[in-house]
Amino acid sequence: MTHERHVLASLSPPKDVISGVVERLCAPSSYQAFACRKLTDSPMPSLETLSEIMDRLKSVLFPGYYGDSEVTPDTLAYHTGANLDVVFRKLADQIKRGFCFVCVGENKACTGCEEQAMEKATAFLRAVPDVREKLVLDVQAAYDGDPAAKSPGETIFCYPSVTALIHQRVAHELHRLGVDIIPRIITEMAHSATGIDIHPGASIGKRFFIDHGTGVVVGETCVIGDNVRLYQGVTLGAKSFPKDDFGNPVKGLARHPIVEDDVIIYSGATVLGRITVGKGAVIGANVWVTSDVPPGARVMKASPDEKG
Amino acid sequence: MTHERHVLASLSPPKDVISGVVERLCAPSSYQAFACRKLTDSPMPSLETLSEIMDRLKSVLFPGYYGDSEVTPDTLAYHTGANLDVVFRKLADQIKRGFCFVCVGENKACTGCEEQAMEKATAFLRAVPDVREKLVLDVQAAYDGDPAAKSPGETIFCYPSVTALIHQRVAHELHRLGVDIIPRIITEMAHSATGIDIHPGASIGKRFFIDHGTGVVVGETCVIGDNVRLYQGVTLGAKSFPKDDFGNPVKGLARHPIVEDDVIIYSGATVLGRITVGKGAVIGANVWVTSDVPPGARVMKASPDEKG
Amino acid sequence: MTHERHVLASLSPPKDVISGVVERLCAPSSYQAFACRKLTDSPMPSLETLSEIMDRLKSVLFPGYYGDSEVTPDTLAYHTGANLDVVFRKLADQIKRGFCFVCVGENKACTGCEEQAMEKATAFLRAVPDVREKLVLDVQAAYDGDPAAKSPGETIFCYPSVTALIHQRVAHELHRLGVDIIPRIITEMAHSATGIDIHPGASIGKRFFIDHGTGVVVGETCVIGDNVRLYQGVTLGAKSFPKDDFGNPVKGLARHPIVEDDVIIYSGATVLGRITVGKGAVIGANVWVTSDVPPGARVMKASPDEKG
Amino acid sequence: MTHERHVLASLSPPKDVISGVVERLCAPSSYQAFACRKLTDSPMPSLETLSEIMDRLKSVLFPGYYGDSEVTPDTLAYHTGANLDVVFRKLADQIKRGFCFVCVGENKACTGCEEQAMEKATAFLRAVPDVREKLVLDVQAAYDGDPAAKSPGETIFCYPSVTALIHQRVAHELHRLGVDIIPRIITEMAHSATGIDIHPGASIGKRFFIDHGTGVVVGETCVIGDNVRLYQGVTLGAKSFPKDDFGNPVKGLARHPIVEDDVIIYSGATVLGRITVGKGAVIGANVWVTSDVPPGARVMKASPDEKG
Amino acid sequence: MTHERHVLASLSPPKDVISGVVERLCAPSSYQAFACRKLTDSPMPSLETLSEIMDRLKSVLFPGYYGDSEVTPDTLAYHTGANLDVVFRKLADQIKRGFCFVCVGENKACTGCEEQAMEKATAFLRAVPDVREKLVLDVQAAYDGDPAAKSPGETIFCYPSVTALIHQRVAHELHRLGVDIIPRIITEMAHSATGIDIHPGASIGKRFFIDHGTGVVVGETCVIGDNVRLYQGVTLGAKSFPKDDFGNPVKGLARHPIVEDDVIIYSGATVLGRITVGKGAVIGANVWVTSDVPPGARVMKASPDEKG
Amino acid sequence: MTHERHVLASLSPPKDVISGVVERLCAPSSYQAFACRKLTDSPMPSLETLSEIMDRLKSVLFPGYYGDSEVTPDTLAYHTGANLDVVFRKLADQIKRGFCFVCVGENKACTGCEEQAMEKATAFLRAVPDVREKLVLDVQAAYDGDPAAKSPGETIFCYPSVTALIHQRVAHELHRLGVDIIPRIITEMAHSATGIDIHPGASIGKRFFIDHGTGVVVGETCVIGDNVRLYQGVTLGAKSFPKDDFGNPVKGLARHPIVEDDVIIYSGATVLGRITVGKGAVIGANVWVTSDVPPGARVMKASPDEKG
Repeated sequence: MTHERHVLASLSPPKDVISGVVERLCAPSSYQAFACRKLTDSPMPSLETLSEIMDRLKSVLFPGYYGDSEVTPDTLAYHTGANLDVVFRKLADQIKRGFCFVCVGENKACTGCEEQAMEKATAFLRAVPDVREKLVLDVQAAYDGDPAAKSPGETIFCYPSVTALIHQRVAHELHRLGVDIIPRIITEMAHSATGIDIHPGASIGKRFFIDHGTGVVVGETCVIGDNVRLYQGVTLGAKSFPKDDFGNPVKGLARHPIVEDDVIIYSGATVLGRITVGKGAVIGANVWVTSDVPPGARVMKASPDEKG
Repeated sequence: MTHERHVLASLSPPKDVISGVVERLCAPSSYQAFACRKLTDSPMPSLETLSEIMDRLKSVLFPGYYGDSEVTPDTLAYHTGANLDVVFRKLADQIKRGFCFVCVGENKACTGCEEQAMEKATAFLRAVPDVREKLVLDVQAAYDGDPAAKSPGETIFCYPSVTALIHQRVAHELHRLGVDIIPRIITEMAHSATGIDIHPGASIGKRFFIDHGTGVVVGETCVIGDNVRLYQGVTLGAKSFPKDDFGNPVKGLARHPIVEDDVIIYSGATVLGRITVGKGAVIGANVWVTSDVPPGARVMKASPDEKG
Repeated sequence: MTHERHVLASLSPPKDVISGVVERLCAPSSYQAFACRKLTDSPMPSLETLSEIMDRLKSVLFPGYYGDSEVTPDTLAYHTGANLDVVFRKLADQIKRGFCFVCVGENKACTGCEEQAMEKATAFLRAVPDVREKLVLDVQAAYDGDPAAKSPGETIFCYPSVTALIHQRVAHELHRLGVDIIPRIITEMAHSATGIDIHPGASIGKRFFIDHGTGVVVGETCVIGDNVRLYQGVTLGAKSFPKDDFGNPVKGLARHPIVEDDVIIYSGATVLGRITVGKGAVIGANVWVTSDVPPGARVMKASPDEKG
Repeated sequence: MTHERHVLASLSPPKDVISGVVERLCAPSSYQAFACRKLTDSPMPSLETLSEIMDRLKSVLFPGYYGDSEVTPDTLAYHTGANLDVVFRKLADQIKRGFCFVCVGENKACTGCEEQAMEKATAFLRAVPDVREKLVLDVQAAYDGDPAAKSPGETIFCYPSVTALIHQRVAHELHRLGVDIIPRIITEMAHSATGIDIHPGASIGKRFFIDHGTGVVVGETCVIGDNVRLYQGVTLGAKSFPKDDFGNPVKGLARHPIVEDDVIIYSGATVLGRITVGKGAVIGANVWVTSDVPPGARVMKASPDEKG
Repeated sequence: MTHERHVLASLSPPKDVISGVVERLCAPSSYQAFACRKLTDSPMPSLETLSEIMDRLKSVLFPGYYGDSEVTPDTLAYHTGANLDVVFRKLADQIKRGFCFVCVGENKACTGCEEQAMEKATAFLRAVPDVREKLVLDVQAAYDGDPAAKSPGETIFCYPSVTALIHQRVAHELHRLGVDIIPRIITEMAHSATGIDIHPGASIGKRFFIDHGTGVVVGETCVIGDNVRLYQGVTLGAKSFPKDDFGNPVKGLARHPIVEDDVIIYSGATVLGRITVGKGAVIGANVWVTSDVPPGARVMKASPDEKG
Repeated sequence: MTHERHVLASLSPPKDVISGVVERLCAPSSYQAFACRKLTDSPMPSLETLSEIMDRLKSVLFPGYYGDSEVTPDTLAYHTGANLDVVFRKLADQIKRGFCFVCVGENKACTGCEEQAMEKATAFLRAVPDVREKLVLDVQAAYDGDPAAKSPGETIFCYPSVTALIHQRVAHELHRLGVDIIPRIITEMAHSATGIDIHPGASIGKRFFIDHGTGVVVGETCVIGDNVRLYQGVTLGAKSFPKDDFGNPVKGLARHPIVEDDVIIYSGATVLGRITVGKGAVIGANVWVTSDVPPGARVMKASPDEKG
């Protein structure tokens, strides 16, 4: 009669079904295409560990905003040191995993991977104060750039621009040190959180600010000067790229824009190719740019005072 | 004098305030509009459980990249089987909850819901190797499509396109099996993580790739061929839809584009309505398309070599 | 040869490296720019706690969809009351932390901060049923506005519009009560999850719906009427803002659009400045609007029936 | 030379080793002895869930001491109701699992197990206030019985006697209702935490107190009156038990002591068999008792005023 | 037919049952006996927080053994300082909660509780190095006292004696500072984990060791000299205590043994009352002692060389 | 006036206090006594990881009882293999850490530690089915030995004897393989949970059972036959041990009892020294034995039929 309400029985799937599926999924032919690890027992980079590393770095870079919300200047050094110690250990291991990950096809063990990983992690550690310095200027730029912001600190808590730049400046430092794969994972974390997709290879000057930010793309070989400001939906991208004799894209060419100091690019604008946007230029919203823009120019579709 | 610094007392709110608020919130008139569960004690689909199911499926589809980063081929079958077993159990239960969720207004218990849920979960399990197969081709397409990518594996770790397709291809399989509500929740998880919004109903061919991806929308009745490539901000949407005699939108019509093989659509382009973009066509950035495009055509606003 | 495979030794970094880095990072000159807390031992707002508060509020507003998926009407009042009690305690503390956070440069303890925080938390609590009421109408609008939606409940689970509005309507209530910083953090959570960036200050009427949503920006001083619908990528922004005699942006001016009842704005449209879009007007996709639009007008670039 | 420090490679075990071991462990002959579940897909009782149930019950019975340490009388009813609701749901499911667990050898599905489980869980719920009432008296007895205790509340926080009695009085209630296996698991949790081993079947009067407690054993068929006090290491056990014609112990006989009101038994005393210790009797430390003790008697090895 | 296997429906209990039970449990008469907090909105000590405090203190006292297993001397100071900072903050709050907890019947707010709590937490912090010093000697004593121990470090990992002394020496320090209730909770944690029940009030000399330990009881007013060794099951307890004119136990009297330097007490021995066991005395296993033992005496039941 | 209720400010301790304390704690003289790791950057064994290893082993040995409570025979092999794979990796690392831990005073890196650790972990893996086999007999013995037990499975859930033996038989296997320190940590986990303290070195025959168990001690060099049964509080210990010329205990001698087949030892009995308790002997409760007991003898203080 009544109590016919019941949730599902916790049955396993039919035995032969699961064994057949497992067999297919574990056939080398099924996974070898993406198993670039020929040294099959070398561990992979770990998204979870990299996420913990970024959380600790954030609490080092902006203590109180990230991590322990009750930390005070008196004991800051202890928390900073403890976090950096763990960051060093875990990052060095991830860097080594990154090396192994890209050792495609060589089918032999890393030589000197461990030493190199530790050297790079050490070099990164030394650079952390410089990263902080640049980020503090970015924070100031965010505050200056938005009339809705009430204090610089607010922009650390609430502005996707700051989040994206924390990840990119950390990743750029690692990229500069020749660390493989890890920097890309780190910027993609920020892309997921903010909708701002900046490649770790991009070189970015001081006091950079992106308002709102969703949909912004900044490509691998971009060079951006000081005091540049972007709005949501701006693309600094590549034109279609040359292919080699086998039809494969030629990798590693400079193919994204150079944006000089004091440039502003409004929402939805698209700037493509290895062109230069000169110092102080202003690109209007939704404008399409594929050739050099002289310093001080205003490239507009609509009235010059609009803002996204 | 000095120690006036203190954090807030952990007081409860005034007693009558909370009881009044609770009373208002728990009056049936306040929640019946969204309580489509007439069988009020049937449990709801759970975002948390569905998230766990997707995590386990990802570690089945791309072991080492997701889940245990130290798994090796030697013992892969055990981890694969254990994860699939849990996926089956939890998915079957969620499918059943999904059925109950949509039993609007019928006010009686599910009949055969449990059997159906298990059949569909079993059918889904059988399809997992095919989903893997398709995803491996998508990974290859991502690698081929971006000069910045250094290995196919890198695109699994860092490319939102791959994340979005894992979720969509899983959800599409469930959608095809007639599973309610669950597929939409699964694609929306990817939308939140990547900014790429693909409806589970969309039919997508082999080697699909979306570069950068933020802002892409692919509608419910889209049909996409092989080797198609999209860039950020592309919409494959519907024109305004017909309404019935009561002014309600008519549901279930084919209203989104058909995109044939080898098409490229650059950033910000908008393609609307049940039109066909013919094989090998190229749609330029920011272009607006509302009628058929012949095979091989290039629909451009600007020079034909630009890329977002 | 054999077991040369090994993972990284868990070494600490060279001792002098870490001490040097810590010293630089903890020099007041390095962090004072963003340490707007002059009362250095006043705790900071906590992203983690605010996230818990929002989770509990969501399970109060849409029980079963969020939080315990097995809750039933019979015992709903207990769960509602228990969650509200915790919300009150934690929110009151966060509100107080928010006050302290903005006490820049005054260098003295909050006076009456605690009492004010409790009063504001109490007032917020009283407003929760009204927030529910508005959200229920938004849910209905989402269902009515999308032919792919099968039930109002589906939109709570799967529509970023509903997520963004839960956060914005909660944050707007706190903003209205004069709570500092906390509302901005709450809307930014939704921006991160949905790509929809609505400022807590925006005033939004009944039955608001945003389809797909990625890239939408709604500015601080927007005033939006009833039955308004937006599509992805729409910006309701400011034109460039006036600066004061020192070159700083003048803060607090009404600088975003007024959008009257029954307006529809299609994808990618940009509406800027303190203009009015009149009742029943339709703005087409990718259109650029910087001056008033009369009631009932259709501002289009393409055919009037397109939709993103 | 130097960097020889490394941690272990994360290798899997030799492939044939693990497959051989798995095969042996999964041969039915290896596990059938303890797999009393003939209905192999009926889920087992879960130690983790039972532990959560006890945690919630403790916060219902002694709010503030267990669970949320900031709960106040004003909102106590909400927290109590919410916890009881979850307890009911989870306990009913565990009770059903307990029934299935003991269905040894019958090899058919439970009939009416679900209805019975819900009836018993409902009956248990009704008994919770009585359990509280008894425990409050036990708390008072602990306070009265130890000169080191400064308030009744202190004994809830610090006295293993109270912990053991919370578990036993809850388990006894379930035992009385005919619930299988679950009550034993619940008392064993307390045994592990306190070293006090009281069988759920034991019937215990009001104001019971065990000082220190480690090593106390109270058997299944004990009957204990009011105001009884035990010290550490006391055993209320069985003599050797009769066996049936097949040499198996005869189960279910009354074989443990009856201890009447106001009895005190000092540390290390052993009382065995279905004997009666009369009202007001005192058993000295380390004494060995295997026959009836008359009311008011003092059975001592040493001076009558000693205490453990 | 077949799929009758199902787990329990997730129903709530009958509505009136739960409301009736909640009402009974929330009637003041039901809980006022143990709600010694008259200031009902003062938060209670928290077992969870105290447990975290002890975990952090252990990793400060024996780094590497507790907490981060990869910590090295080079960065030890950072981890130590960070842990102590958190310990200070949380302990000060718990100490204040402890004060409020014992303010029975006074029905008014704590005066100066906060200042006192901070002073006591500061004083405790200063004493931590002394606690370490004593524990290092206890570790050495454990190593010296057991032929099965292979290194002092092993006793930190595996000897309940060391665990019990970490808790007791921390708690004793707090007890000495006049902290209420918290010390008792801390020693009871060790009692639960080890079966060794030492009151925080007990004064214990250097190089104390308890072998095996289960069942050991050391009372509140014990005074133990240097180099004392106990075995499992030893009680240093009180005789029955005097009562005042109202029949209540007189609290606060010295009522437990004084054990002088170099004493050994074998397993199961019971020593009761304010007696003195003289320097170098040996008490045999299971012996019962209620009067003074002269220095160097051997009190035995069996041969003098036995050991538990 | 009113809102004077507040919790403690989250202040850090006075700056000089914490720095002074940290300095004292990090002076090598303060910790070198227990820092037996001369190779200071070799990681320590981790209690947390060993606890996870034991949890996984338990779910391998008694699936359904431990770990996933919904596992079924059909998919058991997957879960078993996945757990064993993780156990192997983590155990091998812990074994290596154990080696490093005992390399006291040698001040040089482990040679071959990694290879040895992997060999021992592999050998252990091979032994797991034998450990299961023995434990299944212990489970049967527990069921046979207690008239209160209703099924063998019940004893897995509720009998401390089974818990203690899982840990001891696992640890004994590792001990036999020459693994350092880890086995002792594993048995101490069981001692903490059950009050039963069995050294990993003890050799234990088939069908061993300990009823209630609290306070039982079984020493390092014990040899126990088949079908032996103990009750709570039994000690199988050493007499006082010989010291070498320097007054240090001579380590490694056989100094605990040999207990032959079919012996029963009742509660509280103490058996000391390298004596033999002959086949079928019965030792009564609280009896003290320090010399050989002939086969079949009954050594009693009281009537021969008593039981604890």
